Amino acid sequence: MPHSYLKPLLDNNGSKIILLLLDGLGGISLTPDGKSALEFAETPNLDRLAAEGSLGQTIPIRLGITPGSGPAHLALFGYEPLEFVIGRGALSAAGINLAVNRGDIAARGNLCTFDENQNVIDRRAGRISHTDAAPVIELLNQVQIQGVEVEIRQVKEYRFVIVMRGEGLNPALNDTDPQETGAPPLQLEAQSPDSKKSAKLMNQWIEKAYQVLADQPVANGFLLRGFATDPGLPAYQEAYELDAVCIAEYPMYKGVSRLVGMDVINDVGEGALGEFNTAKKHWNDYDFFFIHIKKTDSYGEDGNLEGKAKIIEEVDQALPVLLELNPEVLIITGDHSTPAELKSHSWHPVPFLLWAPKTHRTDLETSFSERNCARGGLGTFPAVEIMSLGLAHAGRLKKFGA
Amino acid sequence: MPHSYLKPLLDNNGSKIILLLLDGLGGISLTPDGKSALEFAETPNLDRLAAEGSLGQTIPIRLGITPGSGPAHLALFGYEPLEFVIGRGALSAAGINLAVNRGDIAARGNLCTFDENQNVIDRRAGRISHTDAAPVIELLNQVQIQGVEVEIRQVKEYRFVIVMRGEGLNPALNDTDPQETGAPPLQLEAQSPDSKKSAKLMNQWIEKAYQVLADQPVANGFLLRGFATDPGLPAYQEAYELDAVCIAEYPMYKGVSRLVGMDVINDVGEGALGEFNTAKKHWNDYDFFFIHIKKTDSYGEDGNLEGKAKIIEEVDQALPVLLELNPEVLIITGDHSTPAELKSHSWHPVPFLLWAPKTHRTDLETSFSERNCARGGLGTFPAVEIMSLGLAHAGRLKKFGA
Repeated sequence: MPHSYLKPLLDNNGSKIILLLLDGLGGISLTPDGKSALEFAETPNLDRLAAEGSLGQTIPIRLGITPGSGPAHLALFGYEPLEFVIGRGALSAAGINLAVNRGDIAARGNLCTFDENQNVIDRRAGRISHTDAAPVIELLNQVQIQGVEVEIRQVKEYRFVIVMRGEGLNPALNDTDPQETGAPPLQLEAQSPDSKKSAKLMNQWIEKAYQVLADQPVANGFLLRGFATDPGLPAYQEAYELDAVCIAEYPMYKGVSRLVGMDVINDVGEGALGEFNTAKKHWNDYDFFFIHIKKTDSYGEDGNLEGKAKIIEEVDQALPVLLELNPEVLIITGDHSTPAELKSHSWHPVPFLLWAPKTHRTDLETSFSERNCARGGLGTFPAVEIMSLGLAHAGRLKKFGA
Repeated sequence: MPHSYLKPLLDNNGSKIILLLLDGLGGISLTPDGKSALEFAETPNLDRLAAEGSLGQTIPIRLGITPGSGPAHLALFGYEPLEFVIGRGALSAAGINLAVNRGDIAARGNLCTFDENQNVIDRRAGRISHTDAAPVIELLNQVQIQGVEVEIRQVKEYRFVIVMRGEGLNPALNDTDPQETGAPPLQLEAQSPDSKKSAKLMNQWIEKAYQVLADQPVANGFLLRGFATDPGLPAYQEAYELDAVCIAEYPMYKGVSRLVGMDVINDVGEGALGEFNTAKKHWNDYDFFFIHIKKTDSYGEDGNLEGKAKIIEEVDQALPVLLELNPEVLIITGDHSTPAELKSHSWHPVPFLLWAPKTHRTDLETSFSERNCARGGLGTFPAVEIMSLGLAHAGRLKKFGA
């Protein structure tokens, strides 16, 4: 459960909270004259909110730890990321709304190309198109074995998710992906005594499925990884008394939102403006709006600082749409840093802006940047505390003790 | 184990980290115009690194807690100081490279002077010289009793370490030092049922040893304190995959470094410049360099702010020697504060500077001082997180979760 001390204090007063997440928002400046993307971007609206509200910076997991997207989002949502772990298979299944219940096992799959000796020669089957991959994946979906039910669904192009449902299953199984070409897929083996049955059944299924694909011209094999089951996360409604909704363009963020019990909007407008208009459309239906902007992270990973800055500017320009909704609380932050200089996620603290015009405490900072956030009134704090701050500023937490 | 979540993330990429420790670095300024030693000192090199890198301040143990040198160093090295405890005896033995294994017991000893009724009249035997004390301590080393092996070694002047090795020993024993003159040494007693055997054997040895010294003119007695055994600290190599070395002038810091598995250089140059040149000499042999500067603390304890500032200036002037080595990460901090105004260790946060030109995030601070560190981009954080930050900025930690 997210902080158990919150539960008895909850007061569902109908106020609304927006958590606007710019994926990989944080950047770095390697020299005193250097600028992060957030500092480089022209952001009059964000700077006004920074001046009016409170800044701070968050530690996603622990100091020095670079988070993957899964744990970073769990922390954002208030789930201690060292305690709650979501396997990739469960996350991917949730992302495409494929049911994985407690006791089912799910994994991610890639179509691949085998040579005549069943060595992998292309781990992504030549990046086969979505349309060409669809019938191959449907062939896999037809492969069934006794004692369990198997469901396969295409994610995108060569990628799919497999779910096995039955009695006594356990996800402690290794990946079959050898992570290199020229080698055969790895043998699937039980990684714990409890997963022996799963290993046996999954191996049966794999053998049968290899035969079914044998005649395919390109996608004549597949690789599985990230076996997992439902992580059993307490739902937002239960943990926070919030009717929550996820507005995101990418499946993985929809997935993690579903796992914490959020509704997920499928028909989402494009870009920041599109997403904000989607929030506006559903404004009366929910208390909590998780809005996820992906491309700040993508440009960071590409090392494209100006591209990342441009996305931040788009967010800034679209902000009035959200402000006109008069949320009680607007939080703008990232799940982790993705400095363009490092072209990857990083451990650096994440800029955090809290704007709650009826309850916030203005600090001395007047610009939304890494350097200003480091001096902000909220200090440096773990991301797992964000929900507490949001609930408090929304008037949704009663006094603790008399 | 230091943070167990680090272990699976370690990536030994061969990068190098220097932890430059100015003992007792932190000071205070009692008035707005007041200056700490660090503020008083002229430190162009430190200020340049501060401007380029990130500042912060560390809490050695917990807020308000004044640490001894042992726990302060454990925290620096990433070992939770409330969990791992090194007894003084074990620390002193390690300082002079005297083996104490799990199950042995070690204590610190002082030669002292007894009157005819075996009351202590001088707790340090008139501060007997190193040369005069040596044969007396060698006499003690000859005293053996049945069932155990006893080894005594001189540390400096009247100070020695005793190690007892055998079966079923336990260090839960009180000090014999009465901490005052005119009183007899305290009776040694078991402080737990498990240490009854140790108490009996140690009392036998003490009685026999008193007789051996009875005819000595000055050093005709001794006092024991700080009984301890090997604390069993996980080694640096195991915890961090770092080949680490300690460059220090004083035995106690060599001791704590040995206890975490660092190599210890014996032939260390004098002063900051000497120590930095020693690091240069061994640059190719290690990944992690712990360099310990003692005199900042000594001058702080003496209440000599200018003396402390002078040592900081010496460090500043010698810094180019370290910078020319091009370490991936240079951390400059203290183990605790020793404000000259208080003439003692204190609980105040400790200035912290991190310089990692390929990965750091520059903040708004441009001077290495207590007041600037309090506003630094790294925030205020527990000293036990320093190693995580060092490893991360050295590129030695992989991503956590997918």
